[in-house]
Amino acid sequence: MTNIEPIKAFMEPKSIALIGVSRNTGEDSFNILENLLHYGFSGKVFPVNPSADQILGIKSYPNVKDIPEDIDIAVIASPRSTVLNLVKECADKHVKGIVIVAQGFADGDEEGNAMQREMVKTAREAGARIMGPNSLGIANSFCNLNTSFAFSKMDKVPVGIICQSGLFFPGPPRLILAAKAIDLGNACDIDVSDGLEYFETDPDIKLITLYIEGIKDGRRFIDVARRVAKKKPIVALKSGRGEYGAIASKSHTGSLAGRDEIYDAVFNQCGVIRAADIEELTDLARTFSCLPLIKGRGIGIISMSGAGGVIAADMCQQHKLDVAELSSETLAQVKRLFPPWLAISNPFDAWPAFQVSGRPYKEVVSRAFNLMLADESVNGIVFISGIFGKQESWDISQAILQAVDAVKNKPVVCWLYGDHDDVQAKLEESGKVAVLPSCERAVRALARLREYTEFLEKNP
Amino acid sequence: MTNIEPIKAFMEPKSIALIGVSRNTGEDSFNILENLLHYGFSGKVFPVNPSADQILGIKSYPNVKDIPEDIDIAVIASPRSTVLNLVKECADKHVKGIVIVAQGFADGDEEGNAMQREMVKTAREAGARIMGPNSLGIANSFCNLNTSFAFSKMDKVPVGIICQSGLFFPGPPRLILAAKAIDLGNACDIDVSDGLEYFETDPDIKLITLYIEGIKDGRRFIDVARRVAKKKPIVALKSGRGEYGAIASKSHTGSLAGRDEIYDAVFNQCGVIRAADIEELTDLARTFSCLPLIKGRGIGIISMSGAGGVIAADMCQQHKLDVAELSSETLAQVKRLFPPWLAISNPFDAWPAFQVSGRPYKEVVSRAFNLMLADESVNGIVFISGIFGKQESWDISQAILQAVDAVKNKPVVCWLYGDHDDVQAKLEESGKVAVLPSCERAVRALARLREYTEFLEKNP
Repeated sequence: MTNIEPIKAFMEPKSIALIGVSRNTGEDSFNILENLLHYGFSGKVFPVNPSADQILGIKSYPNVKDIPEDIDIAVIASPRSTVLNLVKECADKHVKGIVIVAQGFADGDEEGNAMQREMVKTAREAGARIMGPNSLGIANSFCNLNTSFAFSKMDKVPVGIICQSGLFFPGPPRLILAAKAIDLGNACDIDVSDGLEYFETDPDIKLITLYIEGIKDGRRFIDVARRVAKKKPIVALKSGRGEYGAIASKSHTGSLAGRDEIYDAVFNQCGVIRAADIEELTDLARTFSCLPLIKGRGIGIISMSGAGGVIAADMCQQHKLDVAELSSETLAQVKRLFPPWLAISNPFDAWPAFQVSGRPYKEVVSRAFNLMLADESVNGIVFISGIFGKQESWDISQAILQAVDAVKNKPVVCWLYGDHDDVQAKLEESGKVAVLPSCERAVRALARLREYTEFLEKNP
Repeated sequence: MTNIEPIKAFMEPKSIALIGVSRNTGEDSFNILENLLHYGFSGKVFPVNPSADQILGIKSYPNVKDIPEDIDIAVIASPRSTVLNLVKECADKHVKGIVIVAQGFADGDEEGNAMQREMVKTAREAGARIMGPNSLGIANSFCNLNTSFAFSKMDKVPVGIICQSGLFFPGPPRLILAAKAIDLGNACDIDVSDGLEYFETDPDIKLITLYIEGIKDGRRFIDVARRVAKKKPIVALKSGRGEYGAIASKSHTGSLAGRDEIYDAVFNQCGVIRAADIEELTDLARTFSCLPLIKGRGIGIISMSGAGGVIAADMCQQHKLDVAELSSETLAQVKRLFPPWLAISNPFDAWPAFQVSGRPYKEVVSRAFNLMLADESVNGIVFISGIFGKQESWDISQAILQAVDAVKNKPVVCWLYGDHDDVQAKLEESGKVAVLPSCERAVRALARLREYTEFLEKNP
């Protein structure tokens, strides 16, 4: 049986001790307490600082053991030389979970390594769990909690992230829009599989993203990831791929990167979709969290630009999708929209159709979507379009959304260029269509969605 | 000897006839004449429209032959059925260059193919040249000229583009920032090699970008591209790579795409840098037009994020760059900036150094740049940083630019995230540093710059 109580204590704490919190506040002070007050965290917060009576109006304690109430989690943000002793004090206090922010443990020298082993031993003996060290801790926008020193906007999106770096944590970078986050840091105790098991049954989370540099317990990861991936998509960025990266990741999170081909094989076996780079991780978080599964490889391409159609067709081939062969019924109807000399129907060349029709562009787009989506050979749509003005005639969002609503089970990805901000915002707000930053990335996202759908088809 | 007079007539015309220009003006009218007047084109413009006496206050002629002056170029923007006759009239008028906007020739059916052959024959007999058909024509911001129907801002950047699609032409998409553009369309006469020869000796242009679907005269391309690439970098996006793309490009520009491996080999032989996708084409246009050559494979990585350092190291390996081994002198100095437990010096981990120093972040960045750039094993820098506020302490632009100025011959690429808009704008305005949209793309751009430098080293 899965036991998610330990990680639940981190993710949904009733009481937090902030050990080593600073009295500095305001700009550039990176004060965790100040941030928590801003978010409106609903649990109790206890600053621990030996040289302050109160911080930001809240009573402060010289030692965690002086706090007169039970503590779910403690966040230790003080230099590494102080950490072992503080962990001991937390253990004595029966704190359930300890976040360690300090660096210089397995990510540092042999002395740091020894300290990391010691802190795990201390915590285990007391039944406490450790997140980190070298971690920003946890974020949970559903209870206004974020233990990062960098102030962040809270987003209630159905995405959870498990990462080994602040770069992917909700904060100023906001590379991945996530509502809940777990920064494993060096992952000396709480690891990626614990995070996966927490998100597995979390009703707030539909999609799980990972940034990892190494996995210690591979066997458990395979068991857990394979089970969880059947319920929710898991998208992973794994770094430390080559020799240079392995050296750097050893120094960054103390991770043993391992052979990259093995990770490829493991992810493939578990149905974990591997992102090639940071941009693909963000693309897939966006795409997987709003699109339905894609039930085949047949793609309809609708493009205002001929070159866009050619490039999208190239990308379909590269990513093992098919440019769908339209049925003779669809072909007959599509041909009526085109000038008589136009030889091809998929990609659907929207500009000549617009020129011939003499009608507003959005009507051409509407016809193209309805015809393509109705064709059985088309499992999903790639739409490419320039938007040439703020006029109503260029607002194609309704045309697209109506066509999508009429079919529902076929995913649509878009690449828009020109004066497209308003149209893009409307499409994204609908939560029904994914807008990607380039033609190639739009096709790639659809291909990864097909990869995940195939995993589910083969592993029902 | 190269004869660039024909293409010069297109690029620097003194007089333009606009055949088939509409009387509709304002929003959504896509009126070329209206656009030219907005740009302030300095040459003479003659509208040709059989049913108007004047358009936008300018005298209009029923036929190009009625214009009482010599015409350098004519832009034919009327349906394909009218084009052959209009080309004949332009030939009779001794127009030097004819841009044909209409579609439906080699990009259409057999009838269109026959018409295309016929128009080439007619023009050749009269000594006129054709650009297109299926072309937006030319743009030259140095004489406020752009024959596209879509209104565009004019940028005097040292970049020229030769393309087979309006998608890459200066206009609303503005994918590539270019001052001069040649849209070959179906390339029935003027082709990519003509464009290369024009830019070869053009003092305004330092970098040439290409979007092509097919090259008809491969032998000439190899001769010309190889010669030009030794003087100016050429960056190419070639589509129609697979079977699907080849079918689509046949219908888009009538191009026979050819086997993709052959293009790889040709580009490689000629020193043409091949971009993988639209984003790489834009990245390389930006990077190559502002950075010096990179004289070796040794890269210094300075990163605020440990994960950024790991990913950059991975990318160096993937793109055949080296994470530089710093000299013992540099190592000794770098170590003094770090906490004692930090094991690695390249990637340079800027966050612990910042924490240890207690000094403004920009001072840490300055020290890191100066140390890395002074090391002989470092040929170029990848810099990764979050910007956490608008405060002066976060403005690292001066720190970077001073370090770059002190060395000059080592390229710097940056990936910035967070609150980085102002810093990025300052760096880009300097024209000395390239800021790329992701960590991976920053390293990739540097690798392509190394590829080009190696071509020059091997082909002096």
